[in-house]
Amino acid sequence: MENGNHGIPENANDHCPGPQSDSAGKADACAGCPNQQICATAPKGPDPDLVAIMERMATVKHKILVLSGKGVGKSTFSAQLAFALADMDYQAGLLDIDICGPSIPKMLGLEGQDIHQSNLGWSPIYLESNLGVMSIGFMLPHPDEAVIWRGPRKNGLIKQFLKDVHWGELDYLVVDAPPGTSDEHISIMQFLQATGIDGAIIVTTPQQVSLIDVRKEISFCNKVGIQVLGVVENMSGLRQSISDLKFAKFSEAGDESDATEWALNYIKTNAPELLSVVACSEVFDSSRGGAAKMCMELGVPFLGKVPLDPQLCRAAEDGRSCFADQKCSASAPALRRIIEKLVAA
Amino acid sequence: MENGNHGIPENANDHCPGPQSDSAGKADACAGCPNQQICATAPKGPDPDLVAIMERMATVKHKILVLSGKGVGKSTFSAQLAFALADMDYQAGLLDIDICGPSIPKMLGLEGQDIHQSNLGWSPIYLESNLGVMSIGFMLPHPDEAVIWRGPRKNGLIKQFLKDVHWGELDYLVVDAPPGTSDEHISIMQFLQATGIDGAIIVTTPQQVSLIDVRKEISFCNKVGIQVLGVVENMSGLRQSISDLKFAKFSEAGDESDATEWALNYIKTNAPELLSVVACSEVFDSSRGGAAKMCMELGVPFLGKVPLDPQLCRAAEDGRSCFADQKCSASAPALRRIIEKLVAA
Repeated sequence: MENGNHGIPENANDHCPGPQSDSAGKADACAGCPNQQICATAPKGPDPDLVAIMERMATVKHKILVLSGKGVGKSTFSAQLAFALADMDYQAGLLDIDICGPSIPKMLGLEGQDIHQSNLGWSPIYLESNLGVMSIGFMLPHPDEAVIWRGPRKNGLIKQFLKDVHWGELDYLVVDAPPGTSDEHISIMQFLQATGIDGAIIVTTPQQVSLIDVRKEISFCNKVGIQVLGVVENMSGLRQSISDLKFAKFSEAGDESDATEWALNYIKTNAPELLSVVACSEVFDSSRGGAAKMCMELGVPFLGKVPLDPQLCRAAEDGRSCFADQKCSASAPALRRIIEKLVAA
Repeated sequence: MENGNHGIPENANDHCPGPQSDSAGKADACAGCPNQQICATAPKGPDPDLVAIMERMATVKHKILVLSGKGVGKSTFSAQLAFALADMDYQAGLLDIDICGPSIPKMLGLEGQDIHQSNLGWSPIYLESNLGVMSIGFMLPHPDEAVIWRGPRKNGLIKQFLKDVHWGELDYLVVDAPPGTSDEHISIMQFLQATGIDGAIIVTTPQQVSLIDVRKEISFCNKVGIQVLGVVENMSGLRQSISDLKFAKFSEAGDESDATEWALNYIKTNAPELLSVVACSEVFDSSRGGAAKMCMELGVPFLGKVPLDPQLCRAAEDGRSCFADQKCSASAPALRRIIEKLVAA
């Protein structure tokens, strides 16, 4: 910066916000603060909530955090990761900590479900006997209504999810986080640190503007001491067979008219060999090397590319697994390779 | 919910988090709380910061908030809106309040710029004499480093942006908000309420999973009393001329090889009329009516559709206006129609 610190704190990357009050009025302990700043007002002795979380998480073998910048299909990835793990006969759980914009219920086909409570705690919603899901989406009386909460209240719910949800024995707990590096991220890290997190998967598109966010996510992981399991490049070029395309003609006045029937007949008659090729389109610019190049520079694992596949978007809309049938032929094999790589590691 | 309130507060949509401590230790006044809950600990008398904000904002005619769910090209829209307003000879300002993931410096081609300070306050970065920009991105010593801040600290910086940035006389101030309905959104609304906000533009894709977020954003605007100026449907179908496509062949083993040269020659020789049509692809499912149908249901204005245009993505990557040349022929006319509609209203 040019002229001093402009009145903002000198170290804009110092994450410790000082003691926070949560909605119950208790102070967070700044536990896990990478700067080792222990606030003067932090409570003495072990936080009983953290002890309860450790007990809950004792039955969960692997905990994986899915992070990303804005709008790169992170929740789609998290959902398909959970589907795939269940498919591989693992006992899987999916926890959605995007309090203000939960997408997971929709993407698992579980909209409108209610959570149950037993003497063991809150029960996840089970899509299969080995795939349980938890989201604030299941708790809202009206799906359209905004959850207008500041950080402390979001943190309180995340803590409650970790403390009170009865997952039982799990091989994998996948945690889908909202975009950013703020309350939800600091909290989940603080709450899970004592129980161990395997690491984070970071989802991106090939665009530089998305990779800027990824660099910040990697910086976050480094600062708080979470291993980066790898980066997934999503929406990495569109692949569609010619017969799946639609075609349009434009009049001189710029009006569009559908020409799909004409074009497909014209191709069949005059250029039938085109029907055996795939049309490719780099919707999101990857000319600067995309995620693979960035991973090389930063020394983090690159897990692979998933093409932009309208069928995968549709599966997410319908809450379906992309592995259940052959529709997602452009994306499902790529996703499966990435997930097998993860599980093997 | 089925079994009572599961231990979370009864009204999950009650936004008032109780008194918040910001980083300076002062309590927010819950000003503008739609529930009219005046916290017992709120300071008495007018907040001097709010008075300072009112003075700053007295020279700004129109204030427009750009909201959205995750990853729908909101920042691209905000950037192009600012470019267009400046192009129309308005005095325009663009304020990026996405503290943890600022995209605006990149999208305006202003990466690496430093802000200046004068006795009038912080100076925005001027791209043109009538287009000023402010973002935390200009304040970070290392662009890759994460800004790991909880809500109160983010709120403090937003307040400072409003209080200390010397915009001068502006026709329009466009505020680009992060995804969600949390700290940044509550704060900007509280801080600007006394000075008046014209309203919010909400950006979405045609997908149901994105429209779920939009319904929450509309609910947020209704609750806090901000007018919805309208909804923009972005990434609304891909349009590309055949000669811009690439083509690939797959071997029996599933290996991909480039067939672009072969396919384009084959088309020129056998099916030249194809070169005058446009290939269309509904990348994001709009089969359920998209944003237009939702707007009709909810009684909010629908401003129009912007096609998914790789050239617009490229312009955003390069920090260019899509109106400066003819490259964004698929998206720029649609964007311009929407912005003209906004300005006319």
